[in-house]
Amino acid sequence: MAQIIPLDAARTPPASLQPLFDLVASDMEAINRIILDKQVSDVELIPELAHHLIDSGGKRLRPMLALAACKLCDYDGAGHVRVASAIEFMHTATLLHDDVVDESGLRRGKKTARMLWGNQASVLVGDFLLGQAFRILVDVGSLPVLKILSNAAAVIAEGEVMQLAAANNTATTEDEYLAIINAKTAALFSAAAEVGAAISSRPVAEQMALRAYGRNLGLAFQLVDDALDYSGDSANLGKSTGDDFREGKITLPVILSFRRGNAEERQFWKRTIAEGKIEDGDLEHAIGLMKQHKALEVTMERARSYGAIAHDALGIFSDRPEKAAMQEVIAFCLHRSH
Amino acid sequence: MAQIIPLDAARTPPASLQPLFDLVASDMEAINRIILDKQVSDVELIPELAHHLIDSGGKRLRPMLALAACKLCDYDGAGHVRVASAIEFMHTATLLHDDVVDESGLRRGKKTARMLWGNQASVLVGDFLLGQAFRILVDVGSLPVLKILSNAAAVIAEGEVMQLAAANNTATTEDEYLAIINAKTAALFSAAAEVGAAISSRPVAEQMALRAYGRNLGLAFQLVDDALDYSGDSANLGKSTGDDFREGKITLPVILSFRRGNAEERQFWKRTIAEGKIEDGDLEHAIGLMKQHKALEVTMERARSYGAIAHDALGIFSDRPEKAAMQEVIAFCLHRSH
Repeated sequence: MAQIIPLDAARTPPASLQPLFDLVASDMEAINRIILDKQVSDVELIPELAHHLIDSGGKRLRPMLALAACKLCDYDGAGHVRVASAIEFMHTATLLHDDVVDESGLRRGKKTARMLWGNQASVLVGDFLLGQAFRILVDVGSLPVLKILSNAAAVIAEGEVMQLAAANNTATTEDEYLAIINAKTAALFSAAAEVGAAISSRPVAEQMALRAYGRNLGLAFQLVDDALDYSGDSANLGKSTGDDFREGKITLPVILSFRRGNAEERQFWKRTIAEGKIEDGDLEHAIGLMKQHKALEVTMERARSYGAIAHDALGIFSDRPEKAAMQEVIAFCLHRSH
Repeated sequence: MAQIIPLDAARTPPASLQPLFDLVASDMEAINRIILDKQVSDVELIPELAHHLIDSGGKRLRPMLALAACKLCDYDGAGHVRVASAIEFMHTATLLHDDVVDESGLRRGKKTARMLWGNQASVLVGDFLLGQAFRILVDVGSLPVLKILSNAAAVIAEGEVMQLAAANNTATTEDEYLAIINAKTAALFSAAAEVGAAISSRPVAEQMALRAYGRNLGLAFQLVDDALDYSGDSANLGKSTGDDFREGKITLPVILSFRRGNAEERQFWKRTIAEGKIEDGDLEHAIGLMKQHKALEVTMERARSYGAIAHDALGIFSDRPEKAAMQEVIAFCLHRSH
């Protein structure tokens, strides 16, 4: 029987990324050397801007997942560190472009690159990092890995476009929202885990298991992110509570509140999210409606349900520290406060 | 002895892309089917926006060069059409991002995608096309081709960043300018030609020859472009004469005029290009100074000299229609008026 992910964090010891950190510590040092290598480009602005973001205390969750998956699959080659670095470059490129598209001012508690160097540099350095990621992957030379990650790159961008098209549209359904986060977030988690099996030439069943683990973990991660945007503490979050609200971003808490609300409430959501006419007290009112309709609770419930699928996906692997660490990542993502 | 590229277009029959068109016509039809395939993404906005640009009458010079190089190298596989399509996707992605960075209003005589769909969509669809290009290349499965094109992707972005850093800087040297156009323009011409040898597993000498051909053709192409921006006819050009001037873009005509000018003239260039304070009549004055210092003439001379290097680079190949067509492309690029 699959282990059930506890619904109440208070009853379990706090989940932590520590087992994952410990597992991949030495490889992560090598990765940090690659991604902080000042020699990556002679064009001064590139390392400057890239380091601002890369070195700003991100969790490096995706490369750590890739490394853990490689270990779980007993990979014994030398390509895993470069593949994991390329994944972090891809992620960083996405963040740079996202902040331009969302006109964000803060990320991880620091001014975004676009506020410091402008949108133009953010777009172009993002392009460079994506090119650099593929350069590294080609150097490793595994076509199955290249296939997984080139596919992820296209799907992530597709998800971002879908999100843009859905922006301010209160009629977005939960299914459409799921398709968006599946592409924009879950695709890279999924790819990061799947490359572990692909680079180790493991059986298809293991590759599919890791893909499913990553995908469902990514869905859970994004759902928690979307809930935190209405419930988190700005200082911890590294961005402001209510950013999604002010940007008119459609996330599950809004979708649920809109669908469960009465005509007057729907007017409120249309005025704020669709028309962007936001007045003092609107964010507090929005959070009040979400509480009333249990929208944040249900969003977290959905997250836990994807987390449980991610947990079960690893069931086919024998019990070993890598598996335990990867399963604890799920609990960490579900219980994080930032 | 290498054939000398004629300095005076009037004395030679007009160079044309026709021989190149004829050579690759059937393959180009297949490429058009790939790049105009509505099924490329289910996300409506993606084909809509991509087709606006892809289908807007570009010359498709880069994929045609790739196909011609494949033919010159007697390639007999089935990957060339997909590789050439991927190159056009890469180019289109660059154009989408360029227009955002340059805040351009017109391209090829049509409103730019960013004017119609916004900067956000242009950034994201560009990302999608780049991801799509790599997806196609991975599908073809040639690591040497992937190496050339992932390298080009990173170098192009690097060149764009260099150009951004040099913007409005009248102290930019001709060498720095060359480094910029070498990266932002010549790298993709070079890669397009080089893949022909790489995918056909030809000797290194032929690969290097095609790389040099493409690189020098690309330099010539960009130099002519930069001269046309001050001398072309807006209707033919598909963009406005003086766009570079208004954007404060540093190109060779400006670099030469600045260095050959007196103190008063340098003040003029600083006010207009560096400080962006442009008044009525300034563009005409700039063109007058360029004429006085032969800046456009010298820019064209430099272009012809790179054209001659490109021509010679193909010298090691036996005389055949592919070689002749590729050499005529050089003459076409030098004598084009748009």
